[in-house]
Amino acid sequence: MNPLSEEKVFKDPVHNYIHVQDSTIWRLINTTEFQRLRRIRQLGTSYLTFHGAEHSRFSHSLGVYEITRRIISQFERSGYPDWPKEERLLTLCAALLHDLGHGPFSHSIEEAFHMNHEDWTRRIVTGDTEVNDILSEIAPDFPDKVSAVIAKTYNKPIVVNLVSSPLDADRMDYLLRDAYYTGVNYGTIDIDRILRMLRPYQGRVVVKESGMHAVEDYLMSRYQMYWQVYFHPVTRSSEIILRQIFRRAKELYHDGYPFGFMVEPLPQLFEDKLDVQAYLKLDEALIQTAFLQWSYEDDRILSELCTRFMHRKLYKYVEMDSVDLEMIDEIRREFGQAGMNPEYDLEIDFPTDLPYDVFRPGDESSQKQILLLDRQEQLREISEVSDIVRSISGIHRGKYHLYYPEDKLEKAITDLSPSISRIFKL
Amino acid sequence: MNPLSEEKVFKDPVHNYIHVQDSTIWRLINTTEFQRLRRIRQLGTSYLTFHGAEHSRFSHSLGVYEITRRIISQFERSGYPDWPKEERLLTLCAALLHDLGHGPFSHSIEEAFHMNHEDWTRRIVTGDTEVNDILSEIAPDFPDKVSAVIAKTYNKPIVVNLVSSPLDADRMDYLLRDAYYTGVNYGTIDIDRILRMLRPYQGRVVVKESGMHAVEDYLMSRYQMYWQVYFHPVTRSSEIILRQIFRRAKELYHDGYPFGFMVEPLPQLFEDKLDVQAYLKLDEALIQTAFLQWSYEDDRILSELCTRFMHRKLYKYVEMDSVDLEMIDEIRREFGQAGMNPEYDLEIDFPTDLPYDVFRPGDESSQKQILLLDRQEQLREISEVSDIVRSISGIHRGKYHLYYPEDKLEKAITDLSPSISRIFKL
Amino acid sequence: MNPLSEEKVFKDPVHNYIHVQDSTIWRLINTTEFQRLRRIRQLGTSYLTFHGAEHSRFSHSLGVYEITRRIISQFERSGYPDWPKEERLLTLCAALLHDLGHGPFSHSIEEAFHMNHEDWTRRIVTGDTEVNDILSEIAPDFPDKVSAVIAKTYNKPIVVNLVSSPLDADRMDYLLRDAYYTGVNYGTIDIDRILRMLRPYQGRVVVKESGMHAVEDYLMSRYQMYWQVYFHPVTRSSEIILRQIFRRAKELYHDGYPFGFMVEPLPQLFEDKLDVQAYLKLDEALIQTAFLQWSYEDDRILSELCTRFMHRKLYKYVEMDSVDLEMIDEIRREFGQAGMNPEYDLEIDFPTDLPYDVFRPGDESSQKQILLLDRQEQLREISEVSDIVRSISGIHRGKYHLYYPEDKLEKAITDLSPSISRIFKL
Amino acid sequence: MNPLSEEKVFKDPVHNYIHVQDSTIWRLINTTEFQRLRRIRQLGTSYLTFHGAEHSRFSHSLGVYEITRRIISQFERSGYPDWPKEERLLTLCAALLHDLGHGPFSHSIEEAFHMNHEDWTRRIVTGDTEVNDILSEIAPDFPDKVSAVIAKTYNKPIVVNLVSSPLDADRMDYLLRDAYYTGVNYGTIDIDRILRMLRPYQGRVVVKESGMHAVEDYLMSRYQMYWQVYFHPVTRSSEIILRQIFRRAKELYHDGYPFGFMVEPLPQLFEDKLDVQAYLKLDEALIQTAFLQWSYEDDRILSELCTRFMHRKLYKYVEMDSVDLEMIDEIRREFGQAGMNPEYDLEIDFPTDLPYDVFRPGDESSQKQILLLDRQEQLREISEVSDIVRSISGIHRGKYHLYYPEDKLEKAITDLSPSISRIFKL
Repeated sequence: MNPLSEEKVFKDPVHNYIHVQDSTIWRLINTTEFQRLRRIRQLGTSYLTFHGAEHSRFSHSLGVYEITRRIISQFERSGYPDWPKEERLLTLCAALLHDLGHGPFSHSIEEAFHMNHEDWTRRIVTGDTEVNDILSEIAPDFPDKVSAVIAKTYNKPIVVNLVSSPLDADRMDYLLRDAYYTGVNYGTIDIDRILRMLRPYQGRVVVKESGMHAVEDYLMSRYQMYWQVYFHPVTRSSEIILRQIFRRAKELYHDGYPFGFMVEPLPQLFEDKLDVQAYLKLDEALIQTAFLQWSYEDDRILSELCTRFMHRKLYKYVEMDSVDLEMIDEIRREFGQAGMNPEYDLEIDFPTDLPYDVFRPGDESSQKQILLLDRQEQLREISEVSDIVRSISGIHRGKYHLYYPEDKLEKAITDLSPSISRIFKL
Repeated sequence: MNPLSEEKVFKDPVHNYIHVQDSTIWRLINTTEFQRLRRIRQLGTSYLTFHGAEHSRFSHSLGVYEITRRIISQFERSGYPDWPKEERLLTLCAALLHDLGHGPFSHSIEEAFHMNHEDWTRRIVTGDTEVNDILSEIAPDFPDKVSAVIAKTYNKPIVVNLVSSPLDADRMDYLLRDAYYTGVNYGTIDIDRILRMLRPYQGRVVVKESGMHAVEDYLMSRYQMYWQVYFHPVTRSSEIILRQIFRRAKELYHDGYPFGFMVEPLPQLFEDKLDVQAYLKLDEALIQTAFLQWSYEDDRILSELCTRFMHRKLYKYVEMDSVDLEMIDEIRREFGQAGMNPEYDLEIDFPTDLPYDVFRPGDESSQKQILLLDRQEQLREISEVSDIVRSISGIHRGKYHLYYPEDKLEKAITDLSPSISRIFKL
Repeated sequence: MNPLSEEKVFKDPVHNYIHVQDSTIWRLINTTEFQRLRRIRQLGTSYLTFHGAEHSRFSHSLGVYEITRRIISQFERSGYPDWPKEERLLTLCAALLHDLGHGPFSHSIEEAFHMNHEDWTRRIVTGDTEVNDILSEIAPDFPDKVSAVIAKTYNKPIVVNLVSSPLDADRMDYLLRDAYYTGVNYGTIDIDRILRMLRPYQGRVVVKESGMHAVEDYLMSRYQMYWQVYFHPVTRSSEIILRQIFRRAKELYHDGYPFGFMVEPLPQLFEDKLDVQAYLKLDEALIQTAFLQWSYEDDRILSELCTRFMHRKLYKYVEMDSVDLEMIDEIRREFGQAGMNPEYDLEIDFPTDLPYDVFRPGDESSQKQILLLDRQEQLREISEVSDIVRSISGIHRGKYHLYYPEDKLEKAITDLSPSISRIFKL
Repeated sequence: MNPLSEEKVFKDPVHNYIHVQDSTIWRLINTTEFQRLRRIRQLGTSYLTFHGAEHSRFSHSLGVYEITRRIISQFERSGYPDWPKEERLLTLCAALLHDLGHGPFSHSIEEAFHMNHEDWTRRIVTGDTEVNDILSEIAPDFPDKVSAVIAKTYNKPIVVNLVSSPLDADRMDYLLRDAYYTGVNYGTIDIDRILRMLRPYQGRVVVKESGMHAVEDYLMSRYQMYWQVYFHPVTRSSEIILRQIFRRAKELYHDGYPFGFMVEPLPQLFEDKLDVQAYLKLDEALIQTAFLQWSYEDDRILSELCTRFMHRKLYKYVEMDSVDLEMIDEIRREFGQAGMNPEYDLEIDFPTDLPYDVFRPGDESSQKQILLLDRQEQLREISEVSDIVRSISGIHRGKYHLYYPEDKLEKAITDLSPSISRIFKL
């Protein structure tokens, strides 16, 4: 560790102050690659549903670092023998950098181009970057260690636990932060209490049994945030349009369409040839600029989709308890006959999530459990002890949603069969 | 008024819910021009100092609308005879739209290109826009009325008062919102109490005398926010670089420099030929995209400035109690001799603000006063009554700051005279 | 309604302002009987566990009134035809006064003396009191109407619903208020959202279906508050001692014991002869004063119990999954043989609560259901729709607790059999 | 220090958790004397103005301890050489116990009976008490040391500074706590920032210059809380009645009046013969019980005053810019002639306070200054540097208030001369 001559702080609305004591952390924050996270929103298109949700992955990454720092400080202050003190800096670096590889509107772009932000994080950490230079100064294999923690393959599971597990610093920060910025107060968790209850124990981070209610509350908050915020149908609508834009632009690009606006590194993106340097030029400013320019393109499909996204003329939706493929085929067919575009004017969405993946016989993955430590130093999986967790852990929620452009459907509706038009209740 | 069939709400972290009851307001929010405000940050470059300050003018504009709506509701509920009920919709529209003309990094771009966001707001409101279409449906002269309120020339000063005065909805929302998003709690004001104390009285909005302490607190919050947030030297540093980029790019453009990246409407901006449609294409996504692309330009000055801004390698500064022009000339001269660029590598800044412009004999402008109404229905200017307001209203704060690129100065320092190099204490 | 010439407000930490517009409400608040609630803590002995929980039933009663007022205002503003406007004042009065009959440390005193605060509320409302005088001015039968609402027998169930139902103003205020004053943030509910979702419908208050998640969150908060605060074992310990004091004092009184301190209306309390005037003299100041004085009594049992309560030397406890009567008998027997007092030195406690009493076939009680109203105007009981509610509604929580004086047990422990002493793990 | 085997915490609404690590602190909290503070309200009669202000000196004392603990932890963590580490426990004990000697309705009872809570604190600390026993175990002279810190005579001023100075833990806690419980948000200060800025320096606690704005904000909060809460005229009215009750009861006692209710230690109080053991029996439960019982006394003056206080029938007031003694004499004379009681039915009040006692030439008292430490390690008094502090420090606020029983004055008004009756504007 290279301590700074004086602790530096960032003012943060969620954690009040973020404290930086190590020069390595300070320098990492000031790299080009980390500063880029200011131009990637934490919640992608959610700002179109919750206008306050304009916060960036930069803010979140600082928050994850800060929570990790507090946990480690407490472990050190309490002198727990099971905490490997020599892993402090590694854990902090991994916490700070774990989201470094996120792209613009990450969720949608990953789906559209079959990318994975974790892979990109590791490529940035181990590639020819400012971040890599700084990490390499600690030790030549230090970047690889950080990469291993992020890949969850590092040989000390307790370090991995702090950065990715059902009760990790990442999830704690995003619940608090997303609640704060959206204004949805379901995400408000008693983080001080949870932190107080964490213990390093036999190579794992576990929870004192008396913290069970705080963990129940945390899991309920996560559950509520999923349904109120993360899977909000209006957000899903904007993500669908986003993916359609990527799909259409890629099609056009491969067809040799003469784009009025095309700038680095979009060609590499469409050709699946992004290297680290090109990837780092991708940000949401670029995507939004491209979309605004493309809203003036001659290709009607692309320009309409871009107009929809930029000016928030999103698709409407209807909710269905179930869908069958025949019905979908029939809708597509009728849409086509009525002059709509069956490939773009209908999308089916089924959000799903389990608030907490419970222990299942055979699933011994230590990264997916929350273990309670009782007074007799016995470990038990929380869903064995908590009725609440057990009862919510099996709940499958969500309905099918059919998304469509309302304006176009309104014009086409008279050409649809009664059974199909009834679905859309216009 | 065209009431919506059911009230619509936006979830807002500052006001909890923003309530929309009128169809006109709802449709204005959904226009292309209003949605563009999502891509303009409320606090410009302040996010480089306070990472949480990533909120947009869209959020703020909804907030100003909501505060205005609450004030008017209270006026109506209390049945105050001095409130002209027929002005409700006009006031709400003006409140919602008052910031419509802000450009990207508004403060800096206005200075660099001698523009004025209020003029642009009025041009958008009265021009060929979606907003204008909606307003015109109310009455043919309704857009002009909205424009007049924003220009502070509307013939009912009470309407202007609500939208722009020392205690207007605009200032109340930004204090609360900027405090919330930066995490700096000095801006926390008791808005419910202030709203309760407002009265329409003889064509003005005045304050019941018993609300004096709440107003004192509000003015102190403003004072603190100015020094803690709005005039923060790191923010000023980023604004200086921003203006230098605009200056350099304009120079290059007029010199016929072959930009690698140049997209509509930047040429019109550099040629002072922006019309409303071109202006509306300007947003912070475009500016950031241009800057990132320009960081690879051959022109060293432009590429360096853009690199500084995008990756937050800002200028450092020294504070001075006073500066004299001779000294500045001397620094510039020595900088030039030492191989630095005197035109770009030194900037002098003197932030200034009066927390509240007090009544002065002769200055009868009703828009600049806060009037207290006592039990005998007498009006008095607050600085006559409040020792606090009187004592802070004359305070001139702030020091001169000299901004410079630390890395370049470090190399040049040995070539500077002792008296000059001493200033920069490297 | 007799409107006040100007609305009056109370500053409240939970609701910010409590607004009083009716002269009847204002005068009720200023009665002797209502002011007495300042001397009755909302959470009884919980302040011995959560030192911040020192708030009174006076504060809570104002809060219940305010929530009710907001619900009714919204009903009136929205012009819902199913809300009987003429019941406004009656509902507000019942909301304000519903806790008027609470005695000192209500929960314990009711158990010890077989009283019921609801009965006392009704006796005060209909008896010879200032409250009755004010209510009678509205109409001679108005006090009886208020009493009927509180007894849940009033002939318009919607009025009863607002004051007592699973989602009433009472529960909403106490969750928020108890969370605020204890500092336990599990009670933080989104009350604005819940209020927005309430609808008067066919003589009931129901919830719009889109408010289901907010109701789930509310029921989870209640569940958490029960286990974290209301049933906290330290609070139970203090309640046990309190009941023991009452029991001992009553025994002594009936035995003719010469109390050093005995003041009105304690004799009436011990003799079950309290009338309204005497009852109103009972408050927590009196109880605490009696207990402090009695801590100097000659009777060792009474003085020790009072010392314990006043100076917070509470009983310790052990948790047991189950208890059987034989074992309890055996403990009592051994305690007696070891010189302890089997009647006072052991108490068994089993806290229980259902977070939400679900609809059961045959249980048609409209006061115990939360009904959701969907877009087709169909009503469904929430536990039919919400997996969360269904899964928590059947949960029985809690363990048996054995309470005992640790100091005395420590001395006696060597005289106990191994099987008994093992239970107490000293 | 005797560390506890495991840290204990108290849940606190203001500081979230209060952490106890030392067994001495834990045992002090559990003493009879410290538990008594639960029965003394922090803000005396303010709950009659702000109903939420029902918090006790127990809560506040824990808060002062916690802030002190945080300051010391930070001093230790930063390794500042000027902090005398060996004084940790002494400072914590003094912080915890500094209010131990407060009596019921402290402000008023001290005025009525010429007592001083600081003296009582020292008598309890050094007398035959549980607190003294625990402190003596540390060292025989330890109670005297604690007493010296509280008397501000301890030979290390830095220890005294932390417990009593213009920026001490006491003031910081009460501003935050009183703001929280009253709901008046003017007291919200950025305590984390202030704590970060404190430095032990040459035997003093000073503030880093960059913390100046935080200190300005703190002083403004204090100023606002004084006028909004502490000197609220309704609170003053209740204090006046309280003092009148004490005055009347003492008169009656010395006249041999046969009280219906008289209990230990009231006789000792009236005879100025309280010893420590008797003093500790005084609490607000006793005072309220006495007052409620006395509201049934035959003495009309006493019973009326007690009725007023208990049922909040307070005196009304008129505000005057100035008063002269002649006028007061005249009012008294006319009141007497009109059948009122000139000794009880008129009280004159002039609240006064200086928000911050500035440095004055000759006043070198180190306990009254806030010193800023600049980068050149120079100390300057804050009012030299801050315009805000300088401008508010000389402000004398407040008007004269004349308090009177409105009901009695209404009956007497026709008998008063026009010039006198005009004052009361009935």
